[in-house]
Amino acid sequence: MHRLPSVVNSGMLQDLQNLGLDVSNASDVIAEHAIDRWYASNAPDVVVFAHSTEDVAKTLKYAHENNIPVTTRGAGVGYVGGAVPMRGGIALSVFQMNEIVEVSVEDGVVVTQPGVITGDLQDAVRELGWYYPPDPASLRECSIGGNIATNAGGPRCLKYGVTKHYVLGLTVVLADGTILKTGGRLHKNKQGFDLTSLFIGSEGMLGVITEATLRLIPHPAHRSMLTATFSEFPTAALAVQTILNSGHHPSALEITDTFTLNAARDYLGQDAFPPGDAHLIIELDGRQAAVEAELPEVAALLEDLGALSIETHVDDTACEAVWKLRRDFSYSLRATGLTKLNEDIVVPRGKLVALVEFAQQLSADTGIPISCFGHAGDGNIHTNLMVADYNEPEIKEKADAALDKLFRWILDNNGAITGEHGVGLAKKKWFRGAVGEASYATHQALKAALDTKNLLNPDKFIEM
Amino acid sequence: MHRLPSVVNSGMLQDLQNLGLDVSNASDVIAEHAIDRWYASNAPDVVVFAHSTEDVAKTLKYAHENNIPVTTRGAGVGYVGGAVPMRGGIALSVFQMNEIVEVSVEDGVVVTQPGVITGDLQDAVRELGWYYPPDPASLRECSIGGNIATNAGGPRCLKYGVTKHYVLGLTVVLADGTILKTGGRLHKNKQGFDLTSLFIGSEGMLGVITEATLRLIPHPAHRSMLTATFSEFPTAALAVQTILNSGHHPSALEITDTFTLNAARDYLGQDAFPPGDAHLIIELDGRQAAVEAELPEVAALLEDLGALSIETHVDDTACEAVWKLRRDFSYSLRATGLTKLNEDIVVPRGKLVALVEFAQQLSADTGIPISCFGHAGDGNIHTNLMVADYNEPEIKEKADAALDKLFRWILDNNGAITGEHGVGLAKKKWFRGAVGEASYATHQALKAALDTKNLLNPDKFIEM
Repeated sequence: MHRLPSVVNSGMLQDLQNLGLDVSNASDVIAEHAIDRWYASNAPDVVVFAHSTEDVAKTLKYAHENNIPVTTRGAGVGYVGGAVPMRGGIALSVFQMNEIVEVSVEDGVVVTQPGVITGDLQDAVRELGWYYPPDPASLRECSIGGNIATNAGGPRCLKYGVTKHYVLGLTVVLADGTILKTGGRLHKNKQGFDLTSLFIGSEGMLGVITEATLRLIPHPAHRSMLTATFSEFPTAALAVQTILNSGHHPSALEITDTFTLNAARDYLGQDAFPPGDAHLIIELDGRQAAVEAELPEVAALLEDLGALSIETHVDDTACEAVWKLRRDFSYSLRATGLTKLNEDIVVPRGKLVALVEFAQQLSADTGIPISCFGHAGDGNIHTNLMVADYNEPEIKEKADAALDKLFRWILDNNGAITGEHGVGLAKKKWFRGAVGEASYATHQALKAALDTKNLLNPDKFIEM
Repeated sequence: MHRLPSVVNSGMLQDLQNLGLDVSNASDVIAEHAIDRWYASNAPDVVVFAHSTEDVAKTLKYAHENNIPVTTRGAGVGYVGGAVPMRGGIALSVFQMNEIVEVSVEDGVVVTQPGVITGDLQDAVRELGWYYPPDPASLRECSIGGNIATNAGGPRCLKYGVTKHYVLGLTVVLADGTILKTGGRLHKNKQGFDLTSLFIGSEGMLGVITEATLRLIPHPAHRSMLTATFSEFPTAALAVQTILNSGHHPSALEITDTFTLNAARDYLGQDAFPPGDAHLIIELDGRQAAVEAELPEVAALLEDLGALSIETHVDDTACEAVWKLRRDFSYSLRATGLTKLNEDIVVPRGKLVALVEFAQQLSADTGIPISCFGHAGDGNIHTNLMVADYNEPEIKEKADAALDKLFRWILDNNGAITGEHGVGLAKKKWFRGAVGEASYATHQALKAALDTKNLLNPDKFIEM
């Protein structure tokens, strides 16, 4: 492995201050920027709080000239250790670049700084009748820059697509401090290569995003929901297939397995859900007349499939109550006293049942409880290994062995080891095998082309 | 400019045949592969007809070892000279790789070879109740590989997005013959950089696409249309804004200016369109109940804006008749006896009126008639300069001077010089200025990283 030169540089703080930057090495600030929501931790030498694109450019130019690693972060709520500065150096926070620069209804775009909370951005455009659909579960605490850096998803991506489907243009600072603008406030653009997409999902390894222009669509006028329980998971999975294959395109299709349902019943009360060992949420949106006509059609399909219960939720308030229940799954699992290793794996949609059967077998073989629930329409199922304490070496070893088996099965079945959270550190071990040698070499070539000194978020999933 | 070594190699045909490839240097084959639908022409030394990914890999490996340029083509119906082999060498046709490998309703994907005609692919999935939305006007003659290489659009991209929103995975042969697989049959995938998008729209300059896995969505059950005429273009443009800003999300929103309408009336008869100097097509799709409820709502908006005529077209047959009229615009313009320089420019949606006013002024200043029509919702307006003969030097010079003015205005107004067709040769002259120096240098770095010898479709929009 190519090792970076040591970055300990007692003059760095002063140098950065002399450049007019907002810098700190106070111990609480350092500690806060050493972690995200995963298990790894490594202290940066200093933290730079950028307030403008120019601040980022100055920081990267200085780092490039002085061979200092730079790890960028937004809200710092990632699940895979992606924002942990593994080689120390500069933790570059863009979290204070938190202004919505412009909402243009005329052009159908919002221009935003990276530190804006995703939910706040959605609210701001919603007030004007417009919609930014990507909805990661963490939307009230994650920032839009992090969403772009990880190509975040969410339940509504089934109908509306993931973050990359909404990014029209970016301002990116490259490793040497050059300011690059890609795309623009245009709904179509075929000027050269798709540089915008190259930076989306690049997890801080190719450049630092300092501004984004996002596509908006007219907000659907109405939404409603059906929730249903089934005697077993395969029937719920069959319902997913039947709904889509009958010409319905729900905004969300969420499935839940027995383990998760039971944990939720233990936490919320046995009557939180009607009887059944599998649960389905079907959200429909569009013109009110359409939703009202479609609800009974879908309900009839569910009935034909032998649903044990079918409930209708007809307005925003009722739908939000269901989403709250859905979010309570995480708290329910936490209430088991166990730690959740949340693996956001993806399988081809037709393999949902095979995945859950494999997970049950893996659980039986290893003694590790496994909870499966998530975005059934996308085949993106959060597969949660429930362990006592992942920081305990013996437990970690056992959990990692189970993860090895899980990921091997996923890859043997044309799946992916991450659908939403990114690779970061958490999945680094499995990344190369997942994408294959030709892809890994292509990643290295791109990284070398855009970050010649390997200074942007080094020691993550590409070794140089 | 870096010049490639001469590729004249009398043994090349024999070498390629010895590799088991289907090769020709017959004069009619060479002539056919020297051009596309633009004005440039340059003969390849040989044409290789690939029948498999392995054929492509063998060809590129041989070319890489022997420093021979390779220009890939599908149906060869591009509008910008992108498939013209400017440095001779090998014209690599993937047009005979024309099988739909698999339609999986379960996984919601189609796996296809690149030579499949886009319209045939749409028909094949439509029969099963599914939808591949991107719909370039040439869909009955263009191939899906070319659509991917240019990130093709079309009218329905307003609601459904462009080609890149549907590509889940690719098999790509890299410049040295390495076979790379990106993505997969997964609706979400966050494994590393977005290599898939890097190849989409790369116009044959980064690799050769030999297989694609495309996302399908349930086909909307119903569609209908409104067509309306207005006394002037600005009112039609205001209608576009009003419709979107009232929460409607049409599948298409097409606008037409006076010049085009009059040419169509001259060609099709004066009563082909009701009176008015601007025309709007609004296509709505979705559940039948929704479309039926939405049509009068949108019609009321048009009436409030003072539309001179509003016509309703309530089923597939009626909608197709309108699309036929729309396609007849091209024939109408051709019937003027002039040659159409079709510039697929894009402006922010709010600048539609400014664009058409500028085009009218440019026409008055230069004496060149200009016809504007196209995808109003995307701000993607086909701006057609009507000239006598573009191959005539004096006319070409005058036309290019007018294009200079047009593109300068576009770029001054945050627009793009191409929204759908690509850069190719036609817009090479304006590309660098359009994207700026940082972007151009980034293009060069990526090209150098993936095509170290600059052999893939050289002499196009990036000089190495």
